[in-house]
Amino acid sequence: MTSDESDLPAPAFTPYRWGDPAHPATLPDSAAQALSALGIDAPPPPPVPAADIMLPEPRLPSAAREELTAILGTDHVRADHDARLAHTRGWSTPDLLRLRSGDASAAPDLVLTPADHDQVVAALACCARHRVAVVPYSGGTSVVGGLSLDDAGRYAGVVALDVRRLDALEELDEVSRTATLQSGVRGPDAERMLAAHGYTLGHFPQSYEGASIGGYAATRSAGQASAGYGRFDEMVVALVLATPAGTVRLGRAPMSAAGPDLRQLVLGSEGALGVVTSVTVRVRPRPQLRRYLGWRFESFGAGVGALRRLAQEGPMPTVLRLSDETETSLNLADPKGRLGQGPGRGGGGRHRGCLAIVGFEGTEAWVTSREAEASALLDAAGGTFLGEEPGEAWRTGRYRAPYLRDPLLDAGALVETLETATFWSRLEAVKQAVTDALTEALTGQGTPPVVLCHVSHVYEAGASLYFTVVCAQSGTPLDQWQAAKSAANHAILASGSTISHHHGVGRDHRRAYAEEAGPLMLDALCAVKSVLDPNGVMNPGVLIAYRRVTP
Amino acid sequence: MTSDESDLPAPAFTPYRWGDPAHPATLPDSAAQALSALGIDAPPPPPVPAADIMLPEPRLPSAAREELTAILGTDHVRADHDARLAHTRGWSTPDLLRLRSGDASAAPDLVLTPADHDQVVAALACCARHRVAVVPYSGGTSVVGGLSLDDAGRYAGVVALDVRRLDALEELDEVSRTATLQSGVRGPDAERMLAAHGYTLGHFPQSYEGASIGGYAATRSAGQASAGYGRFDEMVVALVLATPAGTVRLGRAPMSAAGPDLRQLVLGSEGALGVVTSVTVRVRPRPQLRRYLGWRFESFGAGVGALRRLAQEGPMPTVLRLSDETETSLNLADPKGRLGQGPGRGGGGRHRGCLAIVGFEGTEAWVTSREAEASALLDAAGGTFLGEEPGEAWRTGRYRAPYLRDPLLDAGALVETLETATFWSRLEAVKQAVTDALTEALTGQGTPPVVLCHVSHVYEAGASLYFTVVCAQSGTPLDQWQAAKSAANHAILASGSTISHHHGVGRDHRRAYAEEAGPLMLDALCAVKSVLDPNGVMNPGVLIAYRRVTP
Repeated sequence: MTSDESDLPAPAFTPYRWGDPAHPATLPDSAAQALSALGIDAPPPPPVPAADIMLPEPRLPSAAREELTAILGTDHVRADHDARLAHTRGWSTPDLLRLRSGDASAAPDLVLTPADHDQVVAALACCARHRVAVVPYSGGTSVVGGLSLDDAGRYAGVVALDVRRLDALEELDEVSRTATLQSGVRGPDAERMLAAHGYTLGHFPQSYEGASIGGYAATRSAGQASAGYGRFDEMVVALVLATPAGTVRLGRAPMSAAGPDLRQLVLGSEGALGVVTSVTVRVRPRPQLRRYLGWRFESFGAGVGALRRLAQEGPMPTVLRLSDETETSLNLADPKGRLGQGPGRGGGGRHRGCLAIVGFEGTEAWVTSREAEASALLDAAGGTFLGEEPGEAWRTGRYRAPYLRDPLLDAGALVETLETATFWSRLEAVKQAVTDALTEALTGQGTPPVVLCHVSHVYEAGASLYFTVVCAQSGTPLDQWQAAKSAANHAILASGSTISHHHGVGRDHRRAYAEEAGPLMLDALCAVKSVLDPNGVMNPGVLIAYRRVTP
Repeated sequence: MTSDESDLPAPAFTPYRWGDPAHPATLPDSAAQALSALGIDAPPPPPVPAADIMLPEPRLPSAAREELTAILGTDHVRADHDARLAHTRGWSTPDLLRLRSGDASAAPDLVLTPADHDQVVAALACCARHRVAVVPYSGGTSVVGGLSLDDAGRYAGVVALDVRRLDALEELDEVSRTATLQSGVRGPDAERMLAAHGYTLGHFPQSYEGASIGGYAATRSAGQASAGYGRFDEMVVALVLATPAGTVRLGRAPMSAAGPDLRQLVLGSEGALGVVTSVTVRVRPRPQLRRYLGWRFESFGAGVGALRRLAQEGPMPTVLRLSDETETSLNLADPKGRLGQGPGRGGGGRHRGCLAIVGFEGTEAWVTSREAEASALLDAAGGTFLGEEPGEAWRTGRYRAPYLRDPLLDAGALVETLETATFWSRLEAVKQAVTDALTEALTGQGTPPVVLCHVSHVYEAGASLYFTVVCAQSGTPLDQWQAAKSAANHAILASGSTISHHHGVGRDHRRAYAEEAGPLMLDALCAVKSVLDPNGVMNPGVLIAYRRVTP
């Protein structure tokens, strides 16, 4: 793959719609009844067309722009409307709502597309000299406000640094089974490049169609197959980070006792320390066989018990998920679009109780033997085997659910997701506390919600919980959601759980993160930033409050 | 277990002998020939008896001592000869050589034994105020100079902070399968406490008899069963750190995307940031069945290929090790003491070629099925099955090998170990480079060595290499070893490998670590230290050079 094929112009994705514009979603007919039940009768005003959105006047000092142009070349320092708008925000509902209302006040002054690591280092040093904030831009799929300064006035300007031209598979070590991928390689391209040699990364987050390697690393991404292939932070054995102070290279062995694991300080740093320009990740042979099965449990508690046993006693499947009763009854992932048909009707009973998806990928022998072991365990744990059909329906439709958000927003619904992780012994209590917090906060605003939940990632000691919230939009849906989100964050922290299992901190979770990390470790992180980014220009406001890092 | 049972006085271990004094080792008769072949004819002067070793005059300001006494109580601020000497050094050969020669100049002024986390915090704050260096002391088994300041004059005094009274199993969460253990719990006691509830930690480093939980955490320890149970840094889900600046609590879920994984910044910090007072670790049910098997490979390369396939394709055994030809022929771990009998003689052929130990622990069904799968793979990879006898011989004798060092030192041999880790594609080249470096350096000093090596820990992407070196002592064995060690470090770094897979950095690897971490990340680590330990009193000289952290 050459740089040109993925080069600007024309963003691949529509600024305020999820995913690939070639695959827009429409609501099924059955949705009307469900929307009406939520009190949604009339759609809100349509979104402002992208071409009509006004962008703020660029503020960047001309000297900085000239220097950046000298470093990157004229074609790779862009200030046109399309490039700036496309790099304004991510894919969270608040980000979409702002753009829908025509608010692009967070647009960067310039969009930079460096060709390689050295150009990134030079561009960062230049921005640091001119006190220009740099927002690293990888796939652009952040759902936690990772891409937009909310206090840009502190800086002489803001640039988006888009790594899309760092798009190579640099090295494949077939003996060690590792691949060195540049940070701009998007998920599907990584799979394509590795497949040519018989390998897979096995990293399939919900944002797979848009996200890229640098973002996976910077946000500690977890794919839907993390039970089998591991989280992205578990796959990384080495990395290269460009910072305003220079280059950092880490990773001389899979594991080491040479001091703290500093790779884990870069992973999850969300651009606040620098730009990840490449990572070396372990890869696996492409699976010979995939088997995705459905199991039904009578209650969420029974399903959680079964998942826990699989996670603790094995064999650990490649994919392991459990939807609660509400999510199972709505089955958002069903490609036949059963949304709103209510629980218990048809579908071989798969819309009743709690649906678990249990997937195995690997050699034929491995899949066959592990599936048999897991089936015996799930059977003993009270599960009802539903066969391959629900598993395959989930697998083939798994990237479709988020596409429903756009037509739902069009219709007047408010839709958003949030997530956490905790230990098994607290899982059900945390689910209840977060559901209650969301329900109370939205009902109190006159818009009682439906709250769906699933367990999306499992570990020996605990699991993640992923919530989807749907309700009617109030007059100011942005404020409406912030109140609900704030209540959910409070419930998560009060329960002792983490503010994010895989979405990250961004700017949206900054306050909660300060509580989670604690004042001393937050100071320690600021101190690290002061070394790697002494002028405080790297993705300011992410992880750490502005006042802590502004020079 | 109450505090009293493991309380001072009388150190459990002899200051300059490995392990439990109840199980001293003597050299087998066959050793004489081997020692003679190395040019060792007469023993060196015997070590200075412990009671005759002179300790330096305590320098600690009396105000500091009074405050510490007020915090901890008279009985837990000790300045007697035995307590100070017992906390002077660790278990590396250089540490033993210094003590054998009567050099205890690194003895701490005082030995503190706080009762709980709050007393640790108070003691650290007191030491920081008085510019007294604090050496956290857990099991006292460091082999990289983690326990002795080599530039104590920069401080107003030095105390050893021994966590032995933090010896409780604080909590067992059987649903999440996690245990919260205080840092002073020694390995065997942790197993005893967990066994009472049917669980095991599964962490069995070579120093198991002496090491304790805090040291495991502070040094990123890896046990001999790390393939199955994981490294200690993989087991920790939460931890509490006492620092001069206050308390840090981390870990709200098994995994999180809330910023960098700050737990991994504390693990491996070797006391330079504070004192780990407790960790929450995942535990497993005690195995129903253990099967340890021997396999022979014709060459190290063939054995490495087989181990790699097992690590990459599975099933991963609980224990997986491979000795090279030299180590196999000497079989140091053989309880029948075949040392020096040379290769190829008897023992069912287990002293010929390269011996692999393949161990499985778990439920009966798991052990049986995984052993069958692994055996098929090892068979296909050219291995010869040797049955259970070599496996059981290794398992039952596995803590005995290091005991041989003391009688070897007594006899005039120089013996030491060192280790690294790298990716599979470089493994054999690294082994050769390190062996060559050691051989050249020692041969150049007139003492040609025998260098043994084994693979002790395996990962999908690579493995560790563990070297044992034996040669005749020269006139100044400390200098003799330092020259060899320096050559080995250089070879390790030049090969791109890590300076330590599980021994740590301590003071002995400080320079190599600076090269491995790189100047920016070393500055970042200093910056973290400046937040948690603003007066630079925590285990100074470990990880980071003194000048970087002295106030």
